[in-house]
Amino acid sequence: MTQERNTFIAAAQALLGPKGFTTDAETMAPWLTDWRGRFTGRALGMASPASTEEVAALVRLCREHGVAIVPQGGNSGMSGGATPDESGEALLLTLRRMNASPRIDSEGRTATCEAGVILQVLHEAAEAQGLRFPLSLGGKGSATIGGLISTNAGGTQVLRHGSMRALVLGLQAVLPDGQVLDQLTPLKKDNRGFDLKQLLIGSEGTLGIVTGATLKLEPAVAARSVLWAGVASLRAARALLLHAEKIAGDALEGFEVMPDHAIDATREYMPSIRTPIEGQHPWHVLIELVADAQGAEALPATAERLLVTAFEQELIADAAIAANEAQADKFWQIRETIPSAERARGPAVQHDISVAVAKMPEFVESAVPVIEAEWPGTRAVGFGHLGDGNIHFHVIAPDGVDPKAWQLGDGKAISRRVHDLVTQAGGSISAEHGIGQLKRDELARLGDPVALGLLRAVKQALDPQGLLNPGKLV
Amino acid sequence: MTQERNTFIAAAQALLGPKGFTTDAETMAPWLTDWRGRFTGRALGMASPASTEEVAALVRLCREHGVAIVPQGGNSGMSGGATPDESGEALLLTLRRMNASPRIDSEGRTATCEAGVILQVLHEAAEAQGLRFPLSLGGKGSATIGGLISTNAGGTQVLRHGSMRALVLGLQAVLPDGQVLDQLTPLKKDNRGFDLKQLLIGSEGTLGIVTGATLKLEPAVAARSVLWAGVASLRAARALLLHAEKIAGDALEGFEVMPDHAIDATREYMPSIRTPIEGQHPWHVLIELVADAQGAEALPATAERLLVTAFEQELIADAAIAANEAQADKFWQIRETIPSAERARGPAVQHDISVAVAKMPEFVESAVPVIEAEWPGTRAVGFGHLGDGNIHFHVIAPDGVDPKAWQLGDGKAISRRVHDLVTQAGGSISAEHGIGQLKRDELARLGDPVALGLLRAVKQALDPQGLLNPGKLV
Repeated sequence: MTQERNTFIAAAQALLGPKGFTTDAETMAPWLTDWRGRFTGRALGMASPASTEEVAALVRLCREHGVAIVPQGGNSGMSGGATPDESGEALLLTLRRMNASPRIDSEGRTATCEAGVILQVLHEAAEAQGLRFPLSLGGKGSATIGGLISTNAGGTQVLRHGSMRALVLGLQAVLPDGQVLDQLTPLKKDNRGFDLKQLLIGSEGTLGIVTGATLKLEPAVAARSVLWAGVASLRAARALLLHAEKIAGDALEGFEVMPDHAIDATREYMPSIRTPIEGQHPWHVLIELVADAQGAEALPATAERLLVTAFEQELIADAAIAANEAQADKFWQIRETIPSAERARGPAVQHDISVAVAKMPEFVESAVPVIEAEWPGTRAVGFGHLGDGNIHFHVIAPDGVDPKAWQLGDGKAISRRVHDLVTQAGGSISAEHGIGQLKRDELARLGDPVALGLLRAVKQALDPQGLLNPGKLV
Repeated sequence: MTQERNTFIAAAQALLGPKGFTTDAETMAPWLTDWRGRFTGRALGMASPASTEEVAALVRLCREHGVAIVPQGGNSGMSGGATPDESGEALLLTLRRMNASPRIDSEGRTATCEAGVILQVLHEAAEAQGLRFPLSLGGKGSATIGGLISTNAGGTQVLRHGSMRALVLGLQAVLPDGQVLDQLTPLKKDNRGFDLKQLLIGSEGTLGIVTGATLKLEPAVAARSVLWAGVASLRAARALLLHAEKIAGDALEGFEVMPDHAIDATREYMPSIRTPIEGQHPWHVLIELVADAQGAEALPATAERLLVTAFEQELIADAAIAANEAQADKFWQIRETIPSAERARGPAVQHDISVAVAKMPEFVESAVPVIEAEWPGTRAVGFGHLGDGNIHFHVIAPDGVDPKAWQLGDGKAISRRVHDLVTQAGGSISAEHGIGQLKRDELARLGDPVALGLLRAVKQALDPQGLLNPGKLV
């Protein structure tokens, strides 16, 4: 360890105190590998500042010493965006200590949170006031507000409420020069130039460190109807989506499609699972309708009407409505079991991609045979949020291959091919999981040069030393 | 005229043809003064390209010759953002020829427009398909889509639908280096870095020239209920707003407040105007509820319930519901007459400011007496979009002053004071009209230095030569 580094560590220790800084390998270890276990890095220390002022002072200290910073929230990202590289030269900066209870403004329907607040904690705080935060995802027990903003997280409610970007009303962040951009107090209308907080949302910690946010809340859900339908094709599912939008309007909150292959996998994986409808259907659709107290009474009739008219128009082959909350949860459990069930079938490569909503059926129908033909023995499955054009496109390895070798060989080649196909279709190689280090090279290979040029120009302008989250995104 | 300029003009003429380029003073004149007549500039020519490719080629040509560009849409902006300076060195670039009919995707509920499409034309195209574009404003007969995006325009429907920013799904723009950022095809989910189109929205043509957009449409309004209520104070109006949000939910589309002073002015100005309710009320509230075909049947009952419960809770003193569309239009006419009626009362300075929604009553109640005390004889009036925290704050001159002299003297001082007050209250000196040249100095004086630093850093990174709309915004 050089003298320079020792000087920096001593200064960081003095700044943050024993609770706020460590170089202990064992303490750091859990945070140096991403939760999917794909990336492991090293760090010269782990800082856990307790306030925005401490974050700002630390950034200035890092700047002075030329120390790179890798910001981290709940370490539940999917693309290695919060894992340092192997050089051991960067500082891991965790925001988890900045987790004071969210301040709920029930009149204005907002929640103001420090960056380290865990999503589930926010959910509970909102619920206690008869409100809800309309974004949820698998990692809600560990994902932090700061991480969700930095990665513009999605989830199953994007169809109605948008991704994180649409829910951030105010933002506070420490910039690469150590200054604090404080726009926590939301103004509904403000036209003093372009919207600066948009620079931080989705930039994966490369342009600034999100330290707090004011978020939009919605009235609590007073009633929901969860429907399950069997349809003949993805095109039929899309027709059903348009029909559901027409009948249910703003009540439509979730619309997930699943191929029979994925449903079979869940039955194999968890024999207690029973699909809500009988027989074989090429595709299954899960629909969630919700209403607040004002609309609760009318909701069951809307759900009924949706199904009756869909039958009349021959959009669906069979369907069921969950009779109660327990059944509704069981419907969703099937959808949520798919990723684990697919994994249990053998090694697979997964792709979080999107195309324009209208093009999703066409894309899946054309991409599946391409992949299965070019890599004989594989099975390709597309499922997910049809309403958003977001496809979870999994390709399962042929039987009997060595998992590791396959993933590094054919798996990588398949991913490149999938990314080529989605780029040709005008889509995105990352719909919701971000770029991080996982897809950085693919973004450089396939991204629109003009768009990449803009991302790089802004990065260079705000962080000319490249101190914030080096090696991620661009 | 120097040789250099002549060379540029010849090249521009060759590029754009006689329809696309002029230096004729008479042809240019209407576009060299902003519509409010506050700013008049000069230009070395006016370019009217017919395609994105022509815009891009022109920008490259300007770059080569170091010629600055002032982009212009409908020339109906409020802040002189599209008017060149007096040097005559800049090129006026009008997008009005890029006005092919909007392409409406009725299934996906989007409209794809060239930048020069006029707002009203878009409204009509959407209506023809049973849809609507939920943003409207006074200048809809001249304002263009490109201008509305560049200024992040608002209007009376922001409460429910947001400003332009929330309605832009895809964007195409020519950047200062002449490259085209083409993100017209909207992806609902795309996490390849931060959202680049946000750099263009609201940047007033300083970072790029918007050439096209894909916009969000909503189902057509099938029914509306327009309500008028008299309330005792702005605080009571705010309580009524919260009540209306609770009862009407998403049906609440407009909520405008007006002081009795403004209502009196409209009666004086247009004697045929009759307020929907009798007697004097310190404040009047105009509420618009709308529903699409699905919700139309339930709407009258919701409007009734809103008023009945508001009476029960003593939130309102008197109220009326428009019995038909003609009456509804008359209710709105009163609101829309206020600006002209106020102007007719004598010279005034107007401020388009905003504070956090919850703070609006407090702000108006405290700012009015400050201004009236410091400038005896003036009358200050705050009215507008209570639901957005957006206040049109007018200060009317004392009787008998010389209009021009007052506006340049006391008027300017009053504006600075109002801007001081709103900044102290954590608000914005420009809620919806933008900065342009009108408020540039005030933004420099009062803006958060960190935010200004970011705006400038991005401007410097994307347009180091300062070619795009110099002298505006920053």
